[in-house]
Amino acid sequence: MKLNGVATRSVWLEPDGWSVGIIDQTLLPWQVVRLQLLSAADAAHVIASMQTRGAPLIGAVAAYGLALALRADASDDNLASAYDMLLAARPTAVNLRWALDDVSAFVRQHSRSDRVEAAYRRAAAICDEDVAINEAIGRHGLPLIEAIATRKAPGEPVNILTHCNAGWLATVDLGTATAPIYTAHDGGIPVHVFVDETRPRNQGASLTAFELGQHGVPHTVIADNAGGHLMQHGQVDMVIVGTDRTTGRGDVCNKIGTYLKALAARDNGVPFYVGLPSPTIDFALDDGVAEIPIEQRSAIEVTAMSGRTPDGRIGTVTIVPDGSPAANPAFDVTPARLVTGLITERGVIEASREALERTFPDHASRRHKREAAE
Amino acid sequence: MKLNGVATRSVWLEPDGWSVGIIDQTLLPWQVVRLQLLSAADAAHVIASMQTRGAPLIGAVAAYGLALALRADASDDNLASAYDMLLAARPTAVNLRWALDDVSAFVRQHSRSDRVEAAYRRAAAICDEDVAINEAIGRHGLPLIEAIATRKAPGEPVNILTHCNAGWLATVDLGTATAPIYTAHDGGIPVHVFVDETRPRNQGASLTAFELGQHGVPHTVIADNAGGHLMQHGQVDMVIVGTDRTTGRGDVCNKIGTYLKALAARDNGVPFYVGLPSPTIDFALDDGVAEIPIEQRSAIEVTAMSGRTPDGRIGTVTIVPDGSPAANPAFDVTPARLVTGLITERGVIEASREALERTFPDHASRRHKREAAE
Repeated sequence: MKLNGVATRSVWLEPDGWSVGIIDQTLLPWQVVRLQLLSAADAAHVIASMQTRGAPLIGAVAAYGLALALRADASDDNLASAYDMLLAARPTAVNLRWALDDVSAFVRQHSRSDRVEAAYRRAAAICDEDVAINEAIGRHGLPLIEAIATRKAPGEPVNILTHCNAGWLATVDLGTATAPIYTAHDGGIPVHVFVDETRPRNQGASLTAFELGQHGVPHTVIADNAGGHLMQHGQVDMVIVGTDRTTGRGDVCNKIGTYLKALAARDNGVPFYVGLPSPTIDFALDDGVAEIPIEQRSAIEVTAMSGRTPDGRIGTVTIVPDGSPAANPAFDVTPARLVTGLITERGVIEASREALERTFPDHASRRHKREAAE
Repeated sequence: MKLNGVATRSVWLEPDGWSVGIIDQTLLPWQVVRLQLLSAADAAHVIASMQTRGAPLIGAVAAYGLALALRADASDDNLASAYDMLLAARPTAVNLRWALDDVSAFVRQHSRSDRVEAAYRRAAAICDEDVAINEAIGRHGLPLIEAIATRKAPGEPVNILTHCNAGWLATVDLGTATAPIYTAHDGGIPVHVFVDETRPRNQGASLTAFELGQHGVPHTVIADNAGGHLMQHGQVDMVIVGTDRTTGRGDVCNKIGTYLKALAARDNGVPFYVGLPSPTIDFALDDGVAEIPIEQRSAIEVTAMSGRTPDGRIGTVTIVPDGSPAANPAFDVTPARLVTGLITERGVIEASREALERTFPDHASRRHKREAAE
């Protein structure tokens, strides 16, 4: 997508052919600072610090992290220790483990002298595969937006609400939830996005608003509390969110608060879609509410807020009185019954085990084998 | 309720017998600054600036504002101009108009020489009536909490979720939504309150957490996004919220985001109660979503956030990128079908026109007469 008018990915190989570039997302939207990663430790650090974030992007950066590790030392021991270090950077991220397993298995098929080249090749392929998945999600989601556009007066935008950042910045390019939006916008369909600010980490206000603005997509930031009211008054035509983890029956684990928007969509007859890349599907899981452990993050994300100070620095203010504790569950689960459809790279399907297994028979069996091997 | 250990109301007559004291709520929870109001203009200013806020409290402060005006000049002209000035301070506040009408009608029954004393007497009565209403709401809500407590292991708290601030600070004392909570806590029933931070103005994080903490009630601040997840996992036993305006059939207009919590409560079988003082009932209204105009407040409440800076000042940070617009609807409407019960000063009743008219026949006819007179 465009950054200052130039097509950019969120992770790239630097011109030196080996070091890896990312954007420091903790400084967005205030400063666009590119970071150069020289080692697996650098990659682990930017994942743990959330300077790079988003399930698909973490996987891609971790894959390059293994390549950087092997460049320093291509031994089995170093591969194993880099794997452990990178996995520990964000232990609950499914994509991270998946990418590390993928690259590790691939390089072990190669002789020591070929491992570095193989790892870089596989990391690049993971990036390209992510982009291809997102392009397909965009292609399959486009008709849903087009269908609403045809019912509108000419020039009147299709209003789409999204939560958190499942956008370009969370993936290698294009995003998952945003892929249909960017595809429609680039294809000349007028769209307007209501961006949930997404407390407590404000990924909507700081990242989604930023990337939509950079790409020229009309949007409005709203408090997370506002979406239900907008839906009651016909101001939202559809909801599209991302997913961090999807159960075999189609329950969707996504950023905290997603479930509340799904309830409001259902109550108001607004279609609720999930942009779903197949690597997030875990066929071993069924009932997401009962089975998915939810990461409890630090209370300080609730009690303090960062932003730009009047003198242009990035500063933090405390917003909860001393002595008042805070709780911070990071994700919630939207049951499949509230999901209108899953926009996958193989088409828009019902949120059900039958539809998911029919659409991804290869994943269902692969996951089953992997579970059995553990 | 207690403030620094001393029983305090949120508006009071100063020892001089005529000037009026309030707490500057825009500085809470960081500084407890008392303001002395010397004129109707002072009263109008603190209402417009939201240094004093909350429907019942605004009415009480406005009533004292008329008394201050008459103290300076007891003429009909001055009464009328003070009325207009005070009403314009927060034009959509129903309680404000109600209190101004009430005091105006009362003083007009008196000779000019008696008007000042009459106005102060009526303002004091409005304050005492508010406290009496809230005490009754607390008394009627108490058995709902007791019933849940009896099903818990000894010492295990009843978990109550609330939204915004319908507490001591929004009323003259005790609060509406908080009245049953304080009554239970003071009566020795273990309670724990999940406090929605309530973006964009953060009244939950800054005011409800503060007043609960001052009074010693255990509580935890959460992002507005978290409540649905907590309910899915059985961590919320009941919801109690306030209301700014209640329609004749029991639709509840309250702070933006209330509706989303009502949906989550319904989806998880959690009882959803509204602490409802009868002055908020408007029998002329029926369908709240269709009929109640929603105040659109400044975008800056969404794009910027105030709090305590690291060096102890009150500062503001911008949290939305330049060029990204924001929308800020201040209230939403929770349809009566999602309300388990209305905790009124005359008992807990169903959210229906039949129950409201049966419980408040005097209000129903009064409102009808007032409508007809306009």
